[in-house]
Amino acid sequence: MEKSGTTFTGTPELLLPDWNPSRPRRAQLESGLRTAIREGRLRPDTRLPSTRALAAELGVSRRLVVDTYEQLTAEGHLVARRGSGTRVAPQPPGPRQPAPSHPAEAGPQPGVIDLFAGAPEPALFPRRAWSRALRRAVETLADSRLSYGEFGGAEELRLALAEHLGRVRGAAVEPNQIVTTSGYQQGLRIFCQLVRSRGGRRVAIEDPGYPIAAWTIESEQLDAVPIPIDDRGIDVDAIASGDVDAAVVTPAHSMPLGVALAPERRRELTAWARERGALVLEDDYDAELRYDRGPTGCLQGLAPDVVVLAGSLSKTLAPTLRLGWLCLPGDRVTEAMAQRAAFDGGGPRFTEIAFAEMLSSGAFDRHVRASRQRYRAKRALLLEAVAKVLPDARLKGIAGGLHAVLELPPGTDEKEVIAAAGRAGVKVQGLGDYTLDHPRPPSLVIGYGPPSDRELQRAVAVIAEAASCARR
Amino acid sequence: MEKSGTTFTGTPELLLPDWNPSRPRRAQLESGLRTAIREGRLRPDTRLPSTRALAAELGVSRRLVVDTYEQLTAEGHLVARRGSGTRVAPQPPGPRQPAPSHPAEAGPQPGVIDLFAGAPEPALFPRRAWSRALRRAVETLADSRLSYGEFGGAEELRLALAEHLGRVRGAAVEPNQIVTTSGYQQGLRIFCQLVRSRGGRRVAIEDPGYPIAAWTIESEQLDAVPIPIDDRGIDVDAIASGDVDAAVVTPAHSMPLGVALAPERRRELTAWARERGALVLEDDYDAELRYDRGPTGCLQGLAPDVVVLAGSLSKTLAPTLRLGWLCLPGDRVTEAMAQRAAFDGGGPRFTEIAFAEMLSSGAFDRHVRASRQRYRAKRALLLEAVAKVLPDARLKGIAGGLHAVLELPPGTDEKEVIAAAGRAGVKVQGLGDYTLDHPRPPSLVIGYGPPSDRELQRAVAVIAEAASCARR
Repeated sequence: MEKSGTTFTGTPELLLPDWNPSRPRRAQLESGLRTAIREGRLRPDTRLPSTRALAAELGVSRRLVVDTYEQLTAEGHLVARRGSGTRVAPQPPGPRQPAPSHPAEAGPQPGVIDLFAGAPEPALFPRRAWSRALRRAVETLADSRLSYGEFGGAEELRLALAEHLGRVRGAAVEPNQIVTTSGYQQGLRIFCQLVRSRGGRRVAIEDPGYPIAAWTIESEQLDAVPIPIDDRGIDVDAIASGDVDAAVVTPAHSMPLGVALAPERRRELTAWARERGALVLEDDYDAELRYDRGPTGCLQGLAPDVVVLAGSLSKTLAPTLRLGWLCLPGDRVTEAMAQRAAFDGGGPRFTEIAFAEMLSSGAFDRHVRASRQRYRAKRALLLEAVAKVLPDARLKGIAGGLHAVLELPPGTDEKEVIAAAGRAGVKVQGLGDYTLDHPRPPSLVIGYGPPSDRELQRAVAVIAEAASCARR
Repeated sequence: MEKSGTTFTGTPELLLPDWNPSRPRRAQLESGLRTAIREGRLRPDTRLPSTRALAAELGVSRRLVVDTYEQLTAEGHLVARRGSGTRVAPQPPGPRQPAPSHPAEAGPQPGVIDLFAGAPEPALFPRRAWSRALRRAVETLADSRLSYGEFGGAEELRLALAEHLGRVRGAAVEPNQIVTTSGYQQGLRIFCQLVRSRGGRRVAIEDPGYPIAAWTIESEQLDAVPIPIDDRGIDVDAIASGDVDAAVVTPAHSMPLGVALAPERRRELTAWARERGALVLEDDYDAELRYDRGPTGCLQGLAPDVVVLAGSLSKTLAPTLRLGWLCLPGDRVTEAMAQRAAFDGGGPRFTEIAFAEMLSSGAFDRHVRASRQRYRAKRALLLEAVAKVLPDARLKGIAGGLHAVLELPPGTDEKEVIAAAGRAGVKVQGLGDYTLDHPRPPSLVIGYGPPSDRELQRAVAVIAEAASCARR
């Protein structure tokens, strides 16, 4: 290591240990010197060899060395002082940061069966159709649309979505009431901004409910107010008496209980919202997946003036697409669009147009129909497996979505079952993981989207064993 | 229109004016009834025809009508009361929202030449290469990676980016110090969160600078502190005496002035950051586009412990891809990753992997090289056109990026030139649009990315005419 304040006297091999004259020399010299400085082989204040000397040593043109010194001087790595040649800059290089280990991510662990609630079966993803639709979008999009703009989403998508949501979800929505999102998480944030911009402070959420909702609402400087759910859905009286300015609900299939919001409560909820001047976010996350009948029409269709409908592709196609939407009351669209732009500059047009194409061509409808058939069978398999090995447990919730709640026999310790299942290679969450203030009987939340049939059967067997141990 | 409280007595044509027996009947009946309720043809409390009667009138099975009534009852549109048949729900349907007109968006206006600074020439976008890379990503991504997760970005991309940024930008970054973003706008928000979470309150920004920065910083509950720029870049003394906790800078090519941050100021800035415990955001938005020499290495390479490097594809490929990244000090990565997940659930993996593939295959390097050649020529054309028709004006800034600042002859009214150019079909911004507290001589910011050569020449002629009128 070269002492600072002196002239570098080592050989070029010391300075540039990886020098290879047959590779591009300029890039090598530049990055080699940078690395030497950063790694401390060239200390602060060390004088570099003259350009003439180094050029001769390396067998390169002097011009190349001069240019490189100039470049590194412009970057601040070197200083050129009249009369004292070129030196390494006096400031010591910053401490190299320790590489952090990655935080736990939802990646797969080999051999572990993950009953995560809320992801589709990956094998169903229509790769060919998606790839084709994307390709057409990339090849045909007008030049002018490669830039910024269209902050509400690509026009094709807003048109196709308005038609689709009207037909399939009974939504009352015009194309220009749609703002696309990068998924529900961003949609919830935009909703929070809409609530806050009108002076709202408190947002009712379902308890149990989507675990990230409370945290997200609070990080948007609002208070989340947990409201209990019974078998007719969220307790609307409790919302009305809760002094809240907004409510976030899952009317078609409550997350995670799987309850549908009862008709009279739908009316009470929208009546409350109108009277209070409150906004309701309808998280319509998996409503298209209903196996016993057609999907219940959405709340937004009943009250498009006070309900914001939020949907995404995360349950029907794949979470990694990061594409969702909000359908907004007409007087909130501009604000939501501006907020989307402020968050991230709007959506990726190729992805949006690919989905519009899948909607228009009928490919998406076909995919959802095929998915329903598959999940209907999977759900039946789950019911059967539970009936066989866990006769004391009850599978709850309507026949829809990608998960069901397994109510364990009374007295079973939920956490103990989860831990025991985990030790046997089955990752599953309990209702406790979704609950804030209103505890419920011991239950597991079984996501049957990702696992294969065989894995699902094995997982139920493992859970049965774990539950029986937890009661012994 | 049916009076409420009575039985519907109209013909089926009145109830379902669009009924077409050869189209799917169930969907028609459902959506037809919903529409009739929403549009007020079926008033609240009106009793519907009996299922038997309606089935006979329409020539469909009674079962279909029963199912449909049940469906609409579950949705809250209808109420079934024992003994009084099925009625429209009592609550009046919400007022239909007026469709808002779209706010002005950055879409193209026919016949207008837009000199927007900061977008590439769309014809350069490598559609074939991008389409191929995307297709490979869609076809080969592992099933398990279609779900949530990898909140720092796809592993392939972090690997390829770390190599690329080290080689091309002189960055000191390991793959696990990278967090992908949906572009600079989101990256700036994540940076603000990092500043705030350590108690920071004030953020220095360049003046003139990126116009949305101040607004974004303030919407993240921080104060933006405008710091003047001279021909050696941002005034680091003013930062140091400004009582700020962070700084957002464009060292390679200041936006919009086009100045490179001088070597000694780079050292002063990082020394200040270390002493103060401040964080610096290096907005490296267009640094790869340098036409007179290799790009200046990044500030982050000098001080990876205090500098966050932000880059994106918006200047090299296309803004609509919405893909960018942050390179973070090791001890801030986990927090940035969590914040990305909190904002929008992470990045779209297909897009990320497609870009990783373009990096690894060399296709991106080739594209950037070809782009440089094209922009070098375009910039020369601009210089020539200005010299010819605007000899009193000066084109400022280093030879890089996608814009240049045209300093108008002293005494010219900037706003008047902009207005006159606009009337003649040339949309251009003035330095005033980028300036907060530190006014400068009258100047236009000429983005030469999007327009064709011919458009660029015409735009300069229009500006010359406008400038000469504005001095008359």
